[in-house]
Amino acid sequence: MSSRILSSLQARYESLKVTVSNDAKSPQAAKFLIELTDMSLKFLEKTSVRVPLISLVPNKSYFSFSLKSGKQKTARAINEALFDFKVRDRLNHILNNSLVTLPQEERKKLLYTTAMAFCCAIDLLKKGDQKTPATYFECLIEHLLSRTFGINPRSEVEVLRLEEEASTLPTDLIFDLGPGKSKFHVPIKISTRERVIQVFAHQKVLDGVHGIGTFTGMLVCLTETKLDHTKNEVVEICLPKQWILYQRFIAPIHRFYYFDLPKKYALLKTSTPPMQVLSFSEFFDEAQSLTVPK
Amino acid sequence: MSSRILSSLQARYESLKVTVSNDAKSPQAAKFLIELTDMSLKFLEKTSVRVPLISLVPNKSYFSFSLKSGKQKTARAINEALFDFKVRDRLNHILNNSLVTLPQEERKKLLYTTAMAFCCAIDLLKKGDQKTPATYFECLIEHLLSRTFGINPRSEVEVLRLEEEASTLPTDLIFDLGPGKSKFHVPIKISTRERVIQVFAHQKVLDGVHGIGTFTGMLVCLTETKLDHTKNEVVEICLPKQWILYQRFIAPIHRFYYFDLPKKYALLKTSTPPMQVLSFSEFFDEAQSLTVPK
Repeated sequence: MSSRILSSLQARYESLKVTVSNDAKSPQAAKFLIELTDMSLKFLEKTSVRVPLISLVPNKSYFSFSLKSGKQKTARAINEALFDFKVRDRLNHILNNSLVTLPQEERKKLLYTTAMAFCCAIDLLKKGDQKTPATYFECLIEHLLSRTFGINPRSEVEVLRLEEEASTLPTDLIFDLGPGKSKFHVPIKISTRERVIQVFAHQKVLDGVHGIGTFTGMLVCLTETKLDHTKNEVVEICLPKQWILYQRFIAPIHRFYYFDLPKKYALLKTSTPPMQVLSFSEFFDEAQSLTVPK
Repeated sequence: MSSRILSSLQARYESLKVTVSNDAKSPQAAKFLIELTDMSLKFLEKTSVRVPLISLVPNKSYFSFSLKSGKQKTARAINEALFDFKVRDRLNHILNNSLVTLPQEERKKLLYTTAMAFCCAIDLLKKGDQKTPATYFECLIEHLLSRTFGINPRSEVEVLRLEEEASTLPTDLIFDLGPGKSKFHVPIKISTRERVIQVFAHQKVLDGVHGIGTFTGMLVCLTETKLDHTKNEVVEICLPKQWILYQRFIAPIHRFYYFDLPKKYALLKTSTPPMQVLSFSEFFDEAQSLTVPK
């Protein structure tokens, strides 16, 4: 059973990667994302049980999936309030590009469950595979953003025209909406930890090469939770004071979006300078206003 | 035999860590470094054989150690020209702080062998332990620099005095030589790969908070080699064009030192802006001139 479901998931996952790389905004990409989520939810429902976790995050409860069969393995931590098997009935909102029609709470659940289900299935079916969940998450964001902006991204920026040969800077995604419109620099991370400084540093290079204001930085993250598998404890690793330093002294990032928004980062909206750290579900409401540089 | 040598090495390694954290510049730290190197070289000589590697790095030959006993495991790649069992006779140059009296080629071998021997022993004796070699390398650099500068470092910088409570920025090492003298910001890495951008970004924060020129950035690296254990091939991963971008648009680093200096980075001395990427053995000749800000 496990090996059959793993190979079906992997086949769809490979198709998703190819489709996103060819045409990220295509409805076909949405179809693969929905299929993977649907298959993963079915698999989790049938073959696994919920393991309660000790949450050291105030006001958030977490659990993890574990296979019913003998194996002791547990998947990643899941925010109880944001994961819902019932989103299977609403997955078509991704295909129809109609997430904006869902109320915020519904939308959050749909997005979080779509991001998490496949990752949890892979956690249970493969040992120590961090890359597949990370790539899946990138594909999800790449599809949702390109669908919303109506344009596919690229993953490098031309820099250093001064020399004979042009150099390029490899980046996460770049969405260039054309003359007079925004250009977005979109790093995507499952979680940031100490690696967040890279995001600010890349923005700084873009600001330096192309001028401040040319690229709008927009970080998209899944969560900052960390699960201690021996103690079954969940913590959120947040470094808000370092974020303030980076925002002040490296380069400002315009938006930070989270699927599971850490309170400590949400509070940065009143820091100096203020930083906009929001739930990713809010992106869909403000996307149009972001397409015009302020 | 293997478990006995491993526990002796680990006991000395733990003592080294404690000693360096209490008084990095102490002769006792040198004694532990020498003992660990001596024990590791004996272990390698007795129990392992040299496995030739396919070097894809022009003009450099690499080999690796592998245990004579059945186990297939190989350690990290070693630059043949820089590793020498005979340095055991010259290890006292570390204790006497007299590296500067050795000719460059001798000094390079002594430093490289001292950095590598223990790391290779750990590669062979422990599975997947990256942290012990990295920490050992940090202890080695911390001792050599603090001994040379005659002062112990600290590992954070006070920043953000504007708020009520002072924040600190965790950094690699900071050597503050006092009024009118240099303050060094010293990141230490076994190899940099895509993580080098952190070095420039930290420097940028220090420049922003304390003013440009307050901290002199000095990166110390072991090597940029990567060994493919299935193909037995060694490559050097260098991204010189990205380094130029980071040096130009994030923050300039004053010195980059390598134990196994990559040609592509050495050539950056003629780039725009010029970057000083040198063999770490050269540090000891210029250390005194670096202590006065230019």
